[in-house]
Amino acid sequence: MEYVLAQVGVVVFAMSGVLSAARQRLDIFSIVVVGLLTAVGGGTLRDVILDVPVFWLVDLTTFWVAIAASFITFIGIRFILKLPPRLLSYLDAMGVALFAVQAIDKTLVFGYPAAVAVVMGLITSIAGGIIRDVVTNRPTLLLSRELYATPIMLGSILYVVLLQEMASPLCRLMAMGVIFGMRAIAIRWQLFLPLRLTLKIDLSEDNP
Amino acid sequence: MEYVLAQVGVVVFAMSGVLSAARQRLDIFSIVVVGLLTAVGGGTLRDVILDVPVFWLVDLTTFWVAIAASFITFIGIRFILKLPPRLLSYLDAMGVALFAVQAIDKTLVFGYPAAVAVVMGLITSIAGGIIRDVVTNRPTLLLSRELYATPIMLGSILYVVLLQEMASPLCRLMAMGVIFGMRAIAIRWQLFLPLRLTLKIDLSEDNP
Amino acid sequence: MEYVLAQVGVVVFAMSGVLSAARQRLDIFSIVVVGLLTAVGGGTLRDVILDVPVFWLVDLTTFWVAIAASFITFIGIRFILKLPPRLLSYLDAMGVALFAVQAIDKTLVFGYPAAVAVVMGLITSIAGGIIRDVVTNRPTLLLSRELYATPIMLGSILYVVLLQEMASPLCRLMAMGVIFGMRAIAIRWQLFLPLRLTLKIDLSEDNP
Repeated sequence: MEYVLAQVGVVVFAMSGVLSAARQRLDIFSIVVVGLLTAVGGGTLRDVILDVPVFWLVDLTTFWVAIAASFITFIGIRFILKLPPRLLSYLDAMGVALFAVQAIDKTLVFGYPAAVAVVMGLITSIAGGIIRDVVTNRPTLLLSRELYATPIMLGSILYVVLLQEMASPLCRLMAMGVIFGMRAIAIRWQLFLPLRLTLKIDLSEDNP
Repeated sequence: MEYVLAQVGVVVFAMSGVLSAARQRLDIFSIVVVGLLTAVGGGTLRDVILDVPVFWLVDLTTFWVAIAASFITFIGIRFILKLPPRLLSYLDAMGVALFAVQAIDKTLVFGYPAAVAVVMGLITSIAGGIIRDVVTNRPTLLLSRELYATPIMLGSILYVVLLQEMASPLCRLMAMGVIFGMRAIAIRWQLFLPLRLTLKIDLSEDNP
Repeated sequence: MEYVLAQVGVVVFAMSGVLSAARQRLDIFSIVVVGLLTAVGGGTLRDVILDVPVFWLVDLTTFWVAIAASFITFIGIRFILKLPPRLLSYLDAMGVALFAVQAIDKTLVFGYPAAVAVVMGLITSIAGGIIRDVVTNRPTLLLSRELYATPIMLGSILYVVLLQEMASPLCRLMAMGVIFGMRAIAIRWQLFLPLRLTLKIDLSEDNP
């Protein structure tokens, strides 16, 4: 079940990469490359930092799922564009939730403390999207005003706290629920944090 | 012979990095850094993902070639600018062809399947250029309309298919010929894929 | 002492990341992520390339210092903005000096030649800032006209040369003095290299 959900995450990220690349007129292979980078970028960074074999070199299924999803998105773009645009945002939220929890599990297995696992969860779930935004020349998702990092962070912290108390599958469900739920609310009502928790400064001088 | 060609690839990428950096007024060391990143970035990413020693830490020659090429390009920029601009594009195409084939060889040596090798070939040959474009604030090469990823992908697939049938040096030659040839045609006639294989969508909403 | 200075470097980079992120209205966790990426990005890249355990997975103190510094900068932003803007530039210069020297030490320990160590010093000390600039959508520091890479390069070369002759602590002090001093002079008088050592070309054609 969890494995299937992981593949869903890969599919969703590949789709979001293809959609992002499709704003420019790109040829099919460039688009597939962007889809692939988005889908496997976060997990690759996680595995490189942990110095463990990169997941898509070990499990070729994920590799093929990412490529197939990119191709199918390219071919079926007209159909996908007819879906309500928020559907994809919701799917992305689900992918982020899945990736964060998986990365935390993987980091804990190697004996790292919970705080490191939380940060790895965050890095893993956002790195693919950041790479997608950078190669397609868009402002990175970190710059979007809508809540993005905050739900992941809170859900991840909840997850590692719950893990001390409860059986793992239940924790996982609750953490993913929190991440997905907060993201979904943010998407639905364009939510962002209360202003006192955000920051916007004007600097006339070019600070470092 | 192949080793010499590999160094040619490094030289060409270093030159393209320096030329890209030279659009802004940069000081000499910043320019050399951009040249170096462009020349070794792709191979470094490949080795880090495969978890093998990074090539320029093992073979210092490549390291020195990249630095020397960057310096010499900086010094000889006036001469280089007198060359027909497309000459550099052709050299870049040759570098890409070389890097892709080398990365495939290296990936196959570690026992990975052909499909993984093809993707590693693609990543290796474009990563240096993407890093160059990102640090010098230009749209990444993936966004250029001219065929870029497609020739690499097709040549790489041809290479791994041929390898099952023929002696390696001949395959290499043919694959590199296909990659270089397709890129050269694309450069010469500003070619891109037939429209039905490209994608350009307009999204009013900011999709994920 | 050196260990304390290393933490100072982390703090300073975290602060510069937060300040850079704060130009957009971001929520607190996004800002902390940018601070963290800036503080540990360079060292992470260094360790991944050298294929040694990533420093903040080994020494959790650094990890916590980076996170705490990001949070405190977020909370105390009003106070920090009252400091003379150049103070932060000077702190950044100190951080760069520290990171470069540390990276050189670490690279030499693994038996690599001095030239490789110099390049690793350069990469380590600028990568965090480049990541910061990329994720917050600003021109990367390599594009700033002020001397940035040059002081690091010269100080690093001086360091590896001196190491052959003298006791390590003294070399370290002198190298860091050179890097910090040159950067400080560049910041104070907006210095850049004499024009003949810079390059600015106009290309009508879009070269590779």
